[in-house]
Amino acid sequence: MSGSTFGQLLCVTNFGESHGPAIGCVVDGCPPGLELSEADLQPDLDRRKPGTSRHVTQRRESDRVEILSGLYQGHTIGTPIALLIRNEDAKSGDYAELADTFRPGHADYTYWRKYGRRDPRGGGRSSARLTAPMVAAGAIARKWLAQSFGMRIRGHLQQVGELVVPFESWEMVDANPFFAASLQCVPQLEAHLDALRRSGDSCGAIVRVVATKVPAGLGNPLYDKLDARIAYAMMGINAVKGVEIGAGFGAATEAGSTHGDELTPGGFVSNHAGGMLGGISTGQDIVVRLALKPTSSIRLPRRSVDLQYRAVKVATQGRHDPCVGIRATPIAEAMLALVLMDQALLNRAQNADVSHELAPLPGSID
Amino acid sequence: MSGSTFGQLLCVTNFGESHGPAIGCVVDGCPPGLELSEADLQPDLDRRKPGTSRHVTQRRESDRVEILSGLYQGHTIGTPIALLIRNEDAKSGDYAELADTFRPGHADYTYWRKYGRRDPRGGGRSSARLTAPMVAAGAIARKWLAQSFGMRIRGHLQQVGELVVPFESWEMVDANPFFAASLQCVPQLEAHLDALRRSGDSCGAIVRVVATKVPAGLGNPLYDKLDARIAYAMMGINAVKGVEIGAGFGAATEAGSTHGDELTPGGFVSNHAGGMLGGISTGQDIVVRLALKPTSSIRLPRRSVDLQYRAVKVATQGRHDPCVGIRATPIAEAMLALVLMDQALLNRAQNADVSHELAPLPGSID
Amino acid sequence: MSGSTFGQLLCVTNFGESHGPAIGCVVDGCPPGLELSEADLQPDLDRRKPGTSRHVTQRRESDRVEILSGLYQGHTIGTPIALLIRNEDAKSGDYAELADTFRPGHADYTYWRKYGRRDPRGGGRSSARLTAPMVAAGAIARKWLAQSFGMRIRGHLQQVGELVVPFESWEMVDANPFFAASLQCVPQLEAHLDALRRSGDSCGAIVRVVATKVPAGLGNPLYDKLDARIAYAMMGINAVKGVEIGAGFGAATEAGSTHGDELTPGGFVSNHAGGMLGGISTGQDIVVRLALKPTSSIRLPRRSVDLQYRAVKVATQGRHDPCVGIRATPIAEAMLALVLMDQALLNRAQNADVSHELAPLPGSID
Amino acid sequence: MSGSTFGQLLCVTNFGESHGPAIGCVVDGCPPGLELSEADLQPDLDRRKPGTSRHVTQRRESDRVEILSGLYQGHTIGTPIALLIRNEDAKSGDYAELADTFRPGHADYTYWRKYGRRDPRGGGRSSARLTAPMVAAGAIARKWLAQSFGMRIRGHLQQVGELVVPFESWEMVDANPFFAASLQCVPQLEAHLDALRRSGDSCGAIVRVVATKVPAGLGNPLYDKLDARIAYAMMGINAVKGVEIGAGFGAATEAGSTHGDELTPGGFVSNHAGGMLGGISTGQDIVVRLALKPTSSIRLPRRSVDLQYRAVKVATQGRHDPCVGIRATPIAEAMLALVLMDQALLNRAQNADVSHELAPLPGSID
Repeated sequence: MSGSTFGQLLCVTNFGESHGPAIGCVVDGCPPGLELSEADLQPDLDRRKPGTSRHVTQRRESDRVEILSGLYQGHTIGTPIALLIRNEDAKSGDYAELADTFRPGHADYTYWRKYGRRDPRGGGRSSARLTAPMVAAGAIARKWLAQSFGMRIRGHLQQVGELVVPFESWEMVDANPFFAASLQCVPQLEAHLDALRRSGDSCGAIVRVVATKVPAGLGNPLYDKLDARIAYAMMGINAVKGVEIGAGFGAATEAGSTHGDELTPGGFVSNHAGGMLGGISTGQDIVVRLALKPTSSIRLPRRSVDLQYRAVKVATQGRHDPCVGIRATPIAEAMLALVLMDQALLNRAQNADVSHELAPLPGSID
Repeated sequence: MSGSTFGQLLCVTNFGESHGPAIGCVVDGCPPGLELSEADLQPDLDRRKPGTSRHVTQRRESDRVEILSGLYQGHTIGTPIALLIRNEDAKSGDYAELADTFRPGHADYTYWRKYGRRDPRGGGRSSARLTAPMVAAGAIARKWLAQSFGMRIRGHLQQVGELVVPFESWEMVDANPFFAASLQCVPQLEAHLDALRRSGDSCGAIVRVVATKVPAGLGNPLYDKLDARIAYAMMGINAVKGVEIGAGFGAATEAGSTHGDELTPGGFVSNHAGGMLGGISTGQDIVVRLALKPTSSIRLPRRSVDLQYRAVKVATQGRHDPCVGIRATPIAEAMLALVLMDQALLNRAQNADVSHELAPLPGSID
Repeated sequence: MSGSTFGQLLCVTNFGESHGPAIGCVVDGCPPGLELSEADLQPDLDRRKPGTSRHVTQRRESDRVEILSGLYQGHTIGTPIALLIRNEDAKSGDYAELADTFRPGHADYTYWRKYGRRDPRGGGRSSARLTAPMVAAGAIARKWLAQSFGMRIRGHLQQVGELVVPFESWEMVDANPFFAASLQCVPQLEAHLDALRRSGDSCGAIVRVVATKVPAGLGNPLYDKLDARIAYAMMGINAVKGVEIGAGFGAATEAGSTHGDELTPGGFVSNHAGGMLGGISTGQDIVVRLALKPTSSIRLPRRSVDLQYRAVKVATQGRHDPCVGIRATPIAEAMLALVLMDQALLNRAQNADVSHELAPLPGSID
Repeated sequence: MSGSTFGQLLCVTNFGESHGPAIGCVVDGCPPGLELSEADLQPDLDRRKPGTSRHVTQRRESDRVEILSGLYQGHTIGTPIALLIRNEDAKSGDYAELADTFRPGHADYTYWRKYGRRDPRGGGRSSARLTAPMVAAGAIARKWLAQSFGMRIRGHLQQVGELVVPFESWEMVDANPFFAASLQCVPQLEAHLDALRRSGDSCGAIVRVVATKVPAGLGNPLYDKLDARIAYAMMGINAVKGVEIGAGFGAATEAGSTHGDELTPGGFVSNHAGGMLGGISTGQDIVVRLALKPTSSIRLPRRSVDLQYRAVKVATQGRHDPCVGIRATPIAEAMLALVLMDQALLNRAQNADVSHELAPLPGSID
């Protein structure tokens, strides 16, 4: 019931602040026998880490993860896996003047009201830096899901501000610094972000994540629907303001005769449901979309108040992503992986004895 | 950790199936001393219940709730409050032929894959009927929140299919069977739904819920953000496919200089954030939107398969809402109330000793 | 996290007060496909229920249980199983005068301090009557454990006051009203309890519970050891003041060379550990002992205070067990069953893929 | 719901193995504003650490704790507090030959059955070394409880094997390496343990822990009684086989007229209940006793089997406590502190609005 723990059987307890000595997490509940080392976690961490292109924050962190426990002879042994990442490039001086003002769009004011005090250095615990341990934990889940079901979880940037990025192929996603599934869009994206950076402003984004080879039967009727767990995970990512499953808000304007995915002996003929019905996975692809707000730290001066509620102007000079949505792709993938592994464990706890004469229907044959 | 329990300190454990003997819930963790009787719960139940107009399902249920425990001399005493609603108008015959087919868009297939068996009568546990206990539990939370903070939680129907319903006033919401905040739209809504019913099809909807007089400081940094808890609650409501906080998906196209709500000595000047920053409430109104898919039970014949995966046609004749989104309004209000009361209890557990010289900033002065 | 919910995957949420309309519980997480009806629960309820002999309280309750949900065609379907028992013989008048005094040894004072108010009728929620739903829920667990592993969980009364009851055979336990595993002791027990009842006093007891055919591997390293879960369950039973696993307090005076159970190719040669090592079951019998305090409701007058802390004398006239330990046997069995089923589900969630070339070692060959 | 997480609102997630890189824990839910540094944790860690006298294991660990998060300017800020202790004196070679045998009385066999593999170095996760993070976390709770209520939690060794140690004064406890509350017993204890060490055998012990200035009202009716939470905590400590609250097993032979603590205007006249009634604290001292089994690692050869179930002899040569009960005192204190702080937070979550005209009754005036 710790607010910093994610998951029910695969439990990830996150700790740390942006400019403290270290960040990390404890992953408890992982099945034993999974081959694992730091090398399994680093690639995902590297995809998320800052400073990889001029379009993201220039903070320099190697984000080297150390596994402190839970392994023996290169395999998990069923005990908690503690992951540690030291903070290296903590320039706390950047934030000195912010200690007694509340930056608009930031958690400064709410942390202060809730706790009576806050760590102003780099946003403290509200920093997107805390998504690094999520990504590391997610890499464990991805590996287990891949081995257990052949599952793959992939995301891509679907929209940056007004610029919609078409989907061309998954292969393109890791071949550009935007997680765009289209290489022909890259020059446009670069121009867009360069202009944005020059303007001192920021913009929002939409990310789409898809899981393939998901077993049917994950999730629960209520309240703990698979949809609900995914919404919780995604809305828990910094800056996310909206979550959709399948048709999402588009479902509002669909007719029942369109939205309800028909079944045939060859499988589902469409996937408006996004891979789940009644809170339980159908075996089709899981499709999730999330909207991220524009970065709150911008160079343009904005009105705010200080600790005595006196009017001040705030302009943020530090190192920031002009569009936090870009680096959100590996984070969203990681969170979806954590949800699905957790649900897979929960499902076999209750339903390991359920057997069927027939295999699951194939997913969409659309 | 029961999948059927909602909440962490205010815990609502839901039980029942559409055509079983009864539905209900156990509400644990309510503070003692709250004056309470069935009369506090019935009005919200009556707003949700079926058969109130020709535009919703014609199933006749009085939805009379009985409080079985947790009260003494008309007040809560800190022990679990069990709520019981007997099912009365269960016409199981309507569903006999559906027992060996999977209705498109329904949970029939997923329940069967997960559990190996299912109660086909009225959708069993996947029925929207199970939202009645949520509404009853939510009424307890609403009363406590109103007494503790003066909080009000109200919802309205914002869109039905393509038809957008403007917001005129809260007073209008309970003066029409659509939860529309506009009376001039009612004829259009009636015509729309009458046509829909005649066509044998169904449509989706969007509902908006607003909480006022929310104390600042509710929620947690991560993962258990207030946003995440709300998303979990809303996406756990039957048929919901999308959830937005504040600007929601619109945030993707906003600039940081627009989205980030400025603060002045007089308070926040806007509320794009929807009442929370960094996972914690600001004290502004909480604004949530949810998209509901079209009812899956429609008279139009659709392709499906039977238990042996042979092709069949399914047309649903039973009693169904042509737009489930209509009755979703009191449900969404109830779920938001449950989240906020839970978070209020959690917050004072940790932060009861936090004091401030200054009162919270006023909410949006926009 | 409801305080009234027991278990992590098999979750039992208990509700009710002694003289309210009803008591009951919701059992969530039971695997589907278990054949179940009220007839499976009633025998255990009948073993616990009051009024079965002159040695227990004369309150007359049929303790008929109604299953409200979670079944279809006589089998569990994976959804919550709600159990309802109406209170019938609630003589609240007996307690009228107790409403403004605190009975020594009772929860009157502590409930009042905690909640500011309490239901004084029959002890309200602190009544041993609330163990009835535990027993009903336990019967579900017993059935599942028996079918899954051939497990049996049996208890017997080992001591009443100073009178030690030897173990002769399990068969004798249900052939006398004391749950004594010795028939030759019965006349002594009757004489002891008759004298006690005449004296207006009460006495304590010790109960021993044994589970056989327990699979190896249940439990966790820390903190959630199997021992800890059992201690929690047993110490949560009304009136329990001590819990022992295996050698228990006797282990303090044992040498390591005696206590540590040796292993041979034929199995463990002894069972001082009581069936678990390092928090995890060995596959041997699980052996638990619990000590129960004497009934607090006695006819002998005792000193106490009223709600204004003025001195009063309290003598309880109602209907009470002179030794609550007697009826504790089926309760302890039920709680152990709930723990073991919960742990079996948890274990297969994490470790379903673990396989061994060798079968578990046999239990003690002593 | 992580098995490695202790507590509901004050959540301690423990990680590590005896010979891995590090051990530690994450403490989540601590109220903000508590002054805290490593200096607050080290004294308790030093009381528990190995190598402090010839009567305990000679493993040399400085047990220096590093606080990685959750602090700013020397105070807690409401976010998770991560504690790290590096393992320094890990002589894994000592255990090489044990990797393919199961030591009697150890968790070797059960870990292997459960997980299919295990870390044999120093017992891996089953090592008492993992109590160090519990003690560090407990020190945080002790500080908060002292500041909030003036609470003190102290333990002492009450029995070693057959040798009963009388209670003389709390002051003596920290003036000898046995946590004995009697200095005149020290020579006897030294002789006893020297003889034990020479014999190559080990012995059990009994520890008693007392909390003073406990507020009335902590705990819950059921199942989550204060007694149950304490039993869970104590039985979760390595080697514990029995737990008693107040009169404990002695209650079995007490009469109701003796056991039930009378109340007078001056307070309770006795404390057989050990400070709680009906699962809720009375405001009297909380008194808990725990029995610890003899150390399983002894030099005397014992029968066991290897991984192929072939008969072998095992004699443990490593560095071990001849009586693990000695170092258990600070551990039991820490666990009781964690329970009580957690319950204090839970209680104010639900009951912060409860007020009384009268102060709590004083504790025992005995």
